[in-house]
Amino acid sequence: MASLSSLTPPTVPVELYVTNREKLLSSLRHHLSQSSRPIHGIVFLQGGEEKNRYDTDHTELFRQESFFAYLFGVREPGFYGAIDIATGKSVLFAPRLPAEYAVWLGEIKPLSYFKERYMVSSVFYSDEITTVLHDEYQGSGKPLLFLLHGVNTDSDLFSKPAEFQGIDKFDTDLTTLHPVLTECRVTKSDLELSLIQFANGISSEAHVEVMRKVRVGMYEYQLESMFLHHTYMYGGCRHCSYTCICATGENSGVLHYGHAAAPNDRTLEDGDLALLDMGAEYNFYGSDITCSYPVNGKFSSDQALIYNAVLEAHNAVISTMKPGVSWVDMHKLAEKVILESLKRGSILVGNVDDMMVERLGAVFMPHGLGHLLGIDTHDPGGYPKGLERPKEPGLRSLRTARELQEGMVITVEPGCYFIDALLVPAMGSSNTTKFFNHEAVSRFKGFGGVRIESDVLVMDTGCKNMTKVPREISEIEAVMAGAPWPLDKASTGKG
Amino acid sequence: MASLSSLTPPTVPVELYVTNREKLLSSLRHHLSQSSRPIHGIVFLQGGEEKNRYDTDHTELFRQESFFAYLFGVREPGFYGAIDIATGKSVLFAPRLPAEYAVWLGEIKPLSYFKERYMVSSVFYSDEITTVLHDEYQGSGKPLLFLLHGVNTDSDLFSKPAEFQGIDKFDTDLTTLHPVLTECRVTKSDLELSLIQFANGISSEAHVEVMRKVRVGMYEYQLESMFLHHTYMYGGCRHCSYTCICATGENSGVLHYGHAAAPNDRTLEDGDLALLDMGAEYNFYGSDITCSYPVNGKFSSDQALIYNAVLEAHNAVISTMKPGVSWVDMHKLAEKVILESLKRGSILVGNVDDMMVERLGAVFMPHGLGHLLGIDTHDPGGYPKGLERPKEPGLRSLRTARELQEGMVITVEPGCYFIDALLVPAMGSSNTTKFFNHEAVSRFKGFGGVRIESDVLVMDTGCKNMTKVPREISEIEAVMAGAPWPLDKASTGKG
Repeated sequence: MASLSSLTPPTVPVELYVTNREKLLSSLRHHLSQSSRPIHGIVFLQGGEEKNRYDTDHTELFRQESFFAYLFGVREPGFYGAIDIATGKSVLFAPRLPAEYAVWLGEIKPLSYFKERYMVSSVFYSDEITTVLHDEYQGSGKPLLFLLHGVNTDSDLFSKPAEFQGIDKFDTDLTTLHPVLTECRVTKSDLELSLIQFANGISSEAHVEVMRKVRVGMYEYQLESMFLHHTYMYGGCRHCSYTCICATGENSGVLHYGHAAAPNDRTLEDGDLALLDMGAEYNFYGSDITCSYPVNGKFSSDQALIYNAVLEAHNAVISTMKPGVSWVDMHKLAEKVILESLKRGSILVGNVDDMMVERLGAVFMPHGLGHLLGIDTHDPGGYPKGLERPKEPGLRSLRTARELQEGMVITVEPGCYFIDALLVPAMGSSNTTKFFNHEAVSRFKGFGGVRIESDVLVMDTGCKNMTKVPREISEIEAVMAGAPWPLDKASTGKG
Repeated sequence: MASLSSLTPPTVPVELYVTNREKLLSSLRHHLSQSSRPIHGIVFLQGGEEKNRYDTDHTELFRQESFFAYLFGVREPGFYGAIDIATGKSVLFAPRLPAEYAVWLGEIKPLSYFKERYMVSSVFYSDEITTVLHDEYQGSGKPLLFLLHGVNTDSDLFSKPAEFQGIDKFDTDLTTLHPVLTECRVTKSDLELSLIQFANGISSEAHVEVMRKVRVGMYEYQLESMFLHHTYMYGGCRHCSYTCICATGENSGVLHYGHAAAPNDRTLEDGDLALLDMGAEYNFYGSDITCSYPVNGKFSSDQALIYNAVLEAHNAVISTMKPGVSWVDMHKLAEKVILESLKRGSILVGNVDDMMVERLGAVFMPHGLGHLLGIDTHDPGGYPKGLERPKEPGLRSLRTARELQEGMVITVEPGCYFIDALLVPAMGSSNTTKFFNHEAVSRFKGFGGVRIESDVLVMDTGCKNMTKVPREISEIEAVMAGAPWPLDKASTGKG
């Protein structure tokens, strides 16, 4: 079978994790020295464990905990990892597997395998942690472990500090590591970027594949299946960054559609708009891409109106993004561009600045403009200590309110939705009813919504869109009608 | 796009869960009356919850806990369910969702939606459990809740009894429900069988699809991707029964290959045998199918020798299965047929009965012959109270030692592997070294192994194989060369 992809899964450079560890070491040493603390101690993390489903022996496919993946890249469960802050030496602790593992689960790899694969200074068994770290330690008193403990500002959940037999023989610091390590993950190295770019490339290609094959009468989940297959078959992506959102018709107004209680099970109808939010993960690094288009391949005038409003916002943001720009301002820019379009389209009436004061943008785009992307889809670090989450509708949904920095990868995902739960109160409110052309809005009952989402790298003087999918209506219609992607000159003419 | 499947995902009959609840009620009433206990009280279960990945807001795709799925079929997280033993009335308790759920996650369904969908007597919110159950209760003292607490004999893990605010206002019985409910799941109703049959049908078809498309030079995970795609695209199967095992070459001797530490990432080489153990789940009900064949489409004589040894065992077991037959005897039958074939093939020498006494079968087939299959791949109930697990090598791996009963679905999965960790000690042992043709065995270094697995329904006077894939070498070679499946007369001639 000829490959249907122009891409090949890249070899993952082991230097990636070395670089990540060096970045942490450098930040941590700087931080300690700023606080006049001695530059010693051991960063100590526990990797994830395989989990059973409820009381059964069904094991869920293991995916490494993200901080551990960042520093060590270990794909196997049951590991611990240590980094000596003074010397920079890195140590992995592997589980000691029973002999029958070889029969049931595969070759028991020698420790040297992991040393080479993850490019650490040494590898021991996890029942040797206390001995090894005490031997390593040259000072008096107990060695100091820097454990990972801190809140994820998207989930409000805490990372779990490492646990092991013998931890009482160490001093522990629970506050220093989390903010420093989180901050390291906020900007990406070139090696990290190459993986995010690959995840984007294969996911972009898969979106185009779905765009070409979508037909009225299909189930939404068939679009998910085509996406998953393309990214796994040709991209080696076994995991997705998140559960695929394949929302059509009215479902496209449900921001996080696709989960178990709304499982992509509607049948596509002629005239539906599809909102497909799907991104593959390659070797821990993710992508997050949304395409919106009519399932029958031709935009109606109302669909084109809303689509172009969102596309204009998407493009306006990307052409403004560069280091130092405030993400809150970008969110407002997107809102404003959308409101202006809705006004031009006679859906809204009145002064757009007045609408902005009333936060009308949040009625049409209740979610944030975008979020940091990396090993997690919602990568951590959006709200470092001291940065407050905005309180206003729409803005409070922002997963970060930071200024952009070179090396950040952030999603740009403006959307415009017709959601009764938000529209009805706004259209009834004395403050905002005047902005609506009520008759025009009623045309959009059941319309759902449009989202356009790209993954964007902030560069020294601007930014780069890592996502390459048809965005202009002419491009989408051409590709859906069979044109190659990227379009060649002839097919551009068709659009 | 023309469908590449002859199957259509069936509508799930809601009566399925009604029937399951009635079966439990009848068993439980019988059990209580046998123990001279009053026929009253409330069966009370807690459904599964959606889970986050570590500290992030990445939510894993929710899959209902299996006992809850059996009784209520609820696909949404956060539910509780009750069944009144005296009246048979069933009640679901749904989570009270916040208003913003409608914006982010979809329509907040009215309680009547769940009442109809899951065909229960009534539905309330989960913050009303105590009130509703107390109102329902007519007796004096505290109402009695039968909670689910007991061990899964495959995982050794305990099911979690329901927890809710107000449970202190009830008496609880932790011992009665688990064995009775587990026993209900051991034999399947016709409605359950129709789903297991569909899962088998679409998975069989997907195996054939992979068989046709496999090529030297592919990655193992590409076979997994093709399987997943076929079963989801055409069968609506979002979940698999278990992580796909796509083992080629030497990996085919690793019984549970395919997990995160051995992730189906080898490249297929000419001359490799592939062992593909993959089964889709449809609406909670699973399948579990293994096909073994050479990736280049032509069996070598050694591959044919081992394959036919296993196929003969598979067929011998299926032609002997019927109610009353001991599963331990079936395991021994499979071992014996395999040892006889190995002797005929001059790999073993000596008396097969003597080999059986020395448990030589377990060297070549260290796993059990098969297991109950249903909502869990390893469905519970293999070792009810009083039935001891055998202690001998091979036999102790059996997930059940029961006698067959009409309505059981059990996998028949004999295998023959060349695993150094088992062969080397056996060939060196003074008790067993004499049985080996050491030179012949050395030919199989790196061979891996063969497994053939079908899902078999025990019927009144025999059994029925629910799996329909090419099994004879001639069939496999014909299908791999492009023949239709099932073979028509002309293509059978080719074999």
